[in-house]
Formats: sequence, structure tokens, C-alpha cells
Amino acid sequence: MKQLLSAFFILLLAASPSQATDKKVYGTASLMVVVEREKGSVAVFDSIEHELLGRVEGLGNLRHATMVFSRDARYAFVIARDGVVSKVDLLGMEVEARAKAAENSIGIAISRDNKYIMVCNYEPGGVTILDSGTLKIVKEIPAVMKEFPDGTKLRSRTVGPLDTPDNLMIFGLMEGNAVWVVDMKQEGFPVIKKFEEVGDTPYDQFITPDGRYYLVGLLNSDWMGLLDTWKLDAVKKIDVRERRPAIKTGNEKVSVYHIPHLESWGVANGLAFVPAFGEKRIIVYDMDNWSVVKSIPVAGTPLFVVVRPGGREVWVDNVGAPGSAEERTVDVISVETLSVKKSIDAGKGALDPQFTPKGEAVYISVREEDKVAVYDTDTYKLLKEFPAHKPSGIFSSDRASKFGL
Amino acid sequence: MKQLLSAFFILLLAASPSQATDKKVYGTASLMVVVEREKGSVAVFDSIEHELLGRVEGLGNLRHATMVFSRDARYAFVIARDGVVSKVDLLGMEVEARAKAAENSIGIAISRDNKYIMVCNYEPGGVTILDSGTLKIVKEIPAVMKEFPDGTKLRSRTVGPLDTPDNLMIFGLMEGNAVWVVDMKQEGFPVIKKFEEVGDTPYDQFITPDGRYYLVGLLNSDWMGLLDTWKLDAVKKIDVRERRPAIKTGNEKVSVYHIPHLESWGVANGLAFVPAFGEKRIIVYDMDNWSVVKSIPVAGTPLFVVVRPGGREVWVDNVGAPGSAEERTVDVISVETLSVKKSIDAGKGALDPQFTPKGEAVYISVREEDKVAVYDTDTYKLLKEFPAHKPSGIFSSDRASKFGL
Repeated sequence: MKQLLSAFFILLLAASPSQATDKKVYGTASLMVVVEREKGSVAVFDSIEHELLGRVEGLGNLRHATMVFSRDARYAFVIARDGVVSKVDLLGMEVEARAKAAENSIGIAISRDNKYIMVCNYEPGGVTILDSGTLKIVKEIPAVMKEFPDGTKLRSRTVGPLDTPDNLMIFGLMEGNAVWVVDMKQEGFPVIKKFEEVGDTPYDQFITPDGRYYLVGLLNSDWMGLLDTWKLDAVKKIDVRERRPAIKTGNEKVSVYHIPHLESWGVANGLAFVPAFGEKRIIVYDMDNWSVVKSIPVAGTPLFVVVRPGGREVWVDNVGAPGSAEERTVDVISVETLSVKKSIDAGKGALDPQFTPKGEAVYISVREEDKVAVYDTDTYKLLKEFPAHKPSGIFSSDRASKFGL
Repeated sequence: MKQLLSAFFILLLAASPSQATDKKVYGTASLMVVVEREKGSVAVFDSIEHELLGRVEGLGNLRHATMVFSRDARYAFVIARDGVVSKVDLLGMEVEARAKAAENSIGIAISRDNKYIMVCNYEPGGVTILDSGTLKIVKEIPAVMKEFPDGTKLRSRTVGPLDTPDNLMIFGLMEGNAVWVVDMKQEGFPVIKKFEEVGDTPYDQFITPDGRYYLVGLLNSDWMGLLDTWKLDAVKKIDVRERRPAIKTGNEKVSVYHIPHLESWGVANGLAFVPAFGEKRIIVYDMDNWSVVKSIPVAGTPLFVVVRPGGREVWVDNVGAPGSAEERTVDVISVETLSVKKSIDAGKGALDPQFTPKGEAVYISVREEDKVAVYDTDTYKLLKEFPAHKPSGIFSSDRASKFGL
């Protein structure tokens, strides 16, 4: 009986109502998930009250890690650099499933119907498709760009992928100089289109917010590629040579600290804002005819080019030499005047501005100061700071309903 | 001891893990909330698995009821025709707060910062602002359009409101023939602009998906009003007389079964799709210059004009005489050909097509058959049906991050 009694009290303790109510109940449509790169963890914030909700650890090497959300934004699917996909439960704050997709991975997307995850891999070059429920691998598509007579296959690194409203997945082949399209609706996930010779080394891409146009950036070509996903007829060349004279005159070619794979070019007011790779400027294109409207100087090499919801401003972080002013500066471009209206000294290694869903606040990782800063976007004033361990990418869960994010 | 033992078993029962896990845990970013008009209830669905999650009752007279979501999509704020606002907890499936905003209300919006709710009222004519946490009324703005020497005030019915990226609220004065703008950022919520004589009887409005342009429909004028919310300079007249000849030739003027207050005009591919009030057609405008591109005949009087995510189709429900084919038909317009590509006989009183966030499925209320139907949008095939009591408006919780919805 004494045993029974003590069991009773243990049970009382375990079932105590105070413990039950301690657990915060929350909706998932406006979470902010911050990658803590070195620790292999993510920190999850409520972006209404700006409160830390919890942390999930043990996600692997999160250098260049990125993530997508399940449709209901309950789960984040995080791809680590070592090819490990983690399905993170943002309510339970734990890893619900984990799988090794490849040896070295770079990008991730979720299919329109929420059923599958696609991962782009450097090694072995190709893509891996996983079931979003179990993370079981259901298909591997090698990015074979050349097959030799002896059967040896040369595989390309891939970059992307992006999902479309027609339930396609699109990705680039870096060495293959190609863009491939996979139909996620069809049995066996066939590659339905292979666009060859699109240009030299696809490295970054973007889908317009309406989901129709796919754009691919090319490291060593004088153009960008444009694919109309309604037609899927050709990757057209958008000439970007207009910006060359500016580069030569200003001698602005700068060191590239890393290659962006960001899918974060901006579209606002019928204009596309594209970071000029290896230059200290943003190129603004008129999306009707893809002419260059303006080339806007910014503090450093732009990395993330993020449109504030409502389209009235574009926020840009900058990469620069360690310790430079450049790497502390976040530039705010006015879409009306197409010039920098405000430069914020956000701290050492400030990067990846990410807006709340309606844009009244923005989260910024200040990597070298081990903190996440939240700014009021009307006043540009600091609202709050949180300690975070080498924070990098920040992802708002309203991406769950957006194509290509 | 016997008492203690029995308490122990009661406790065991209450704390039983099976009961704890019975309660479904879910994210809130892709819920589908269906108004059951006559019963004063809402039915809540998971739009990934297409499962009924629960019902919340006791919300009042839900004729023409509409709702908005809190930023995290945990709450739906439902405005009943009798002026009662209910804050519905979509996780707990209960009413968390309730307030009487007016005697007769028509529309609702939530401010950009998630802090306030605005309700438009027929009686007394004006708007009411409530705290979104407590539903405490914080401000009433009478829509006074005329003040007589003896102090008597003539008030107008209001319609709207819509929220903007600059944290404004915009609404129309039906008898006042005016559009007013309230600044939700400023202390006391001042009316910062009053645009007078915009046209005869504003009845419906819309904000473009980018959040920049506000459009107002006018019952008895030959134009629509257009306001650039970046400039707030003037409500410009967009001439709609081009459609008159078509009306006269075809003698298409039909009975109006009710006045829409829907905020659901469609924008896709640079075109605006607007229901022609009291006609059996959709007018397509080029948004660059607001010329009429085409007038597309549909089965009946169009009510909801809803763009499928990705912008490749526009789905239209139709109002018609009770028992007519018109009121059973949902027309699917191709944005590429600007013609009806598919007509679905969705049942008696089919209305309010509402897409899942990425558009692979659509929910339709079939009011006179007491059911909600879910269609696959690739095949136009029925996926599932649910019993529902006189369902009307359907609201997807991804509206939480959209302006004007």
C-alpha cells in the first residue's frame, strides 16, 4: 500500500495541472525559425510577441543550412550540409524524423501537395526525393551530364530546388549548365524537361511570387535564364551586359566570400531586385522587358535581397571583410526612389533580414555578436535582442504557403 | 484508504495518456473554416488531409458573416450580422471572447500589427475598433456624412474595412459616397483622409495582393475608384462604361439576389477580374492602364471571383434563381485564353470556392444540399464531401498573412 501511495503522489506530480498549463499553446502561422549554425540547432520565436518559444538541437552541420515548412507550418524540414534532413516538430520542439539524403546537400523544397521533400546535392550530384511523413527516400535522380563508353558517369552538383503551382520541381545543374524539371504529380517522378546549355554554372534561382516565372543566375555568363513555367518551352537569355560598364568604371569587382544559393531575389512594383554577384550593387530590372532600370550601390556585396511585405522597401544585407563596416550594414532601398533611404549599423556579421508576415518587424542575425536583433520597420529602431549562438539563416513560417520558398 | 484508492483510480483515468493523445495536435497555417449560417457555427477542417477537426457553436446570426485570422492563425475573429464579434480559438475549439460591436455589422479586418480589430457597421453607421486580445471596444468612429443645425447627425452605412501594409484601415461610406482612411499606428486612431464624392454608393472593395492599390466598386456609377495607398492623394475614376454596349445588346441585366461585400475580386497575370454587378459576366481589366481587355460570359451572376494560387485559373461561383442551373455552376476561367475552360455542376446553391494555400484542392459550400465539397483542381474531380448545415463563406487560414483578407 505504501508503494501504491507513493505511485499515487508521483502520478499527482506528473499530471499536475500547473505543469500542463506551463506548456504554451500557440498557432504556427507566424513563427520565426533561426538557424544556429555551429551548434546544429534552431531557435523558434513567436513573431507577434517576439518571444523565444524553444530550441531544437542535434540537427548536424548547419553551414548554409536551409529549411522549408509543412503546409500547416507544424514542421520545419531542415537540410544540413552533411545531407541530413531533420523533420522538426515546432509544437513539440523535437526532431520527429531524420534521414541521410546524400553526402553533401545544399537546398530543399516541399512539393505543392505537401507529400514530398526534394533535396539538391553536391555529392553525389543529383537530387533525392523523400516522403514528407516518414522521411523515407522514395527516389534518387542522378544529375548525369555525361556518360562515357566504359559506363562511367559524370555527375553534376545541383542547386535549388524550387516548387511550382503545377506541382513541378525545378533545379539547376552547376557543372551541367542545365535546368531540369521534375513532375511531382506523376508516378516515379519523371524528369519531364531537360534544358541544356542554359549558361555557364547555374548557382542561384528564384520563382516570381505569382509562381509563374523561374529565373536562374549564372556564375560565368552575361545573362540570366528565364523560364515561363506555364509554357515550359525554353530558358530564355536575359542580357545582363548593361551592367558591365559600371563594373569596369568603378573597378568594383570585390572578393566573393561565398556563393549565394538563396532563392531570395526580390520582386516589387513590377521590378526585380537582383544582387550583382561579386559587385557592391543591386541591379533593378523592369520585369516587362527585362531592361535594366537602375543599378543601386550598396555598402558591400549584397547577399539577401528581401522585399518588405507591401513592396515599398527592399532590405539588403552585405558581406564584407571580417571587421569591415560593410559586414555590419543593412541597407534599406526605397522602391519609389530606387535609392538607399536608410543604412542600419546592425552589428558584426549582420545578415538575413526576415520580415514578420505583414512586415511591421524584421529579424536579423548578428552572427559575430551571437544575437538575433528585432527591428521596428516603421522607425528602424531596435525593438528587442535575443542571445543566439552564431545565428545565420532566418525563416518565417508564412513561407509554408508560398511557392519557391 | 479506500477513498484514497478510488481517488487514485479516478486520477488515473483523468490523466490517462490515451486521452491526452486523443486530442489531435496540429499546426494552424492551413485550416479551412466554414460558416454554417443558420446554426451560428463554424466547422474547422485540416486542408492537408481533408479532415473535420471540430465545430464551434453559438456565434449568432451568421448571414453574410465574415472573418479574419490572428497572425498566428490560432484565432478566427467572426463578425455576425447582429454586430457580435466572436474570438474563436481554433485549437481549443471554443469562443475565447465575445463583444457586441454594433447593432448591424457587415465587415471585419485585423490591423497589420495584430493588435486591433475593425468592424464596419450598417447600424449605427460607422466603424468600431476593438482590442484583439480582449475584444474590449477601444474606439467608435461614427460615419457622419451630414450634420444639421439642430445637432442631428446623418450617419452612413459603412462597408469594408481593408488593412494595408502601412497599418492603415480603409472603408467606404455607402450613403456618404466617400472613402475614409484610418491610421492604426497613431494614438486615438485618427481618420487621416476623407475622400468625398468618389461615386454613388460604394458597396465592395479590394486591395491588390501586393497591398498597394485599393479599389472600390460603386453601385450606381459608371466607374470604379482607385486609390494608390503609397500616395493617398486621390480616389481616381476608372471608367467602366465600355461594358455598357454589351449589356444593352445582350439584354443581360439580371436580378440581383444580394449585394456582394466580398473583397474577393481577382488579380492574376497583371489582369483584374471583377464581377460585373447585376450581369452574367466577368470584366477583365489590364491593370497597367485599366482598359477593358475582355468581358467573359459566365453561367449566372458572379459572386466570388477567386484566383487559384499560381494565377493560371480564376474560379467563379454564380447566383441564380432558386432551382436554376445557374446557382449550381462553378465556372473555371483560363487566365491564358480568358474564357471558361470548365463548368462544374457542384450542386444546389454552390458558392464560395476557397483554395488550399497552394491551390491543389478547393473547398466549395453547397448550401442547399447541406454539404461542403472538396475538389481536386488538376482533375476537377470530387475528392471528398462533408455534411455541413447550410454552409456559406469559407475562409482559409493562410489569409492570416495577407493584406485586405
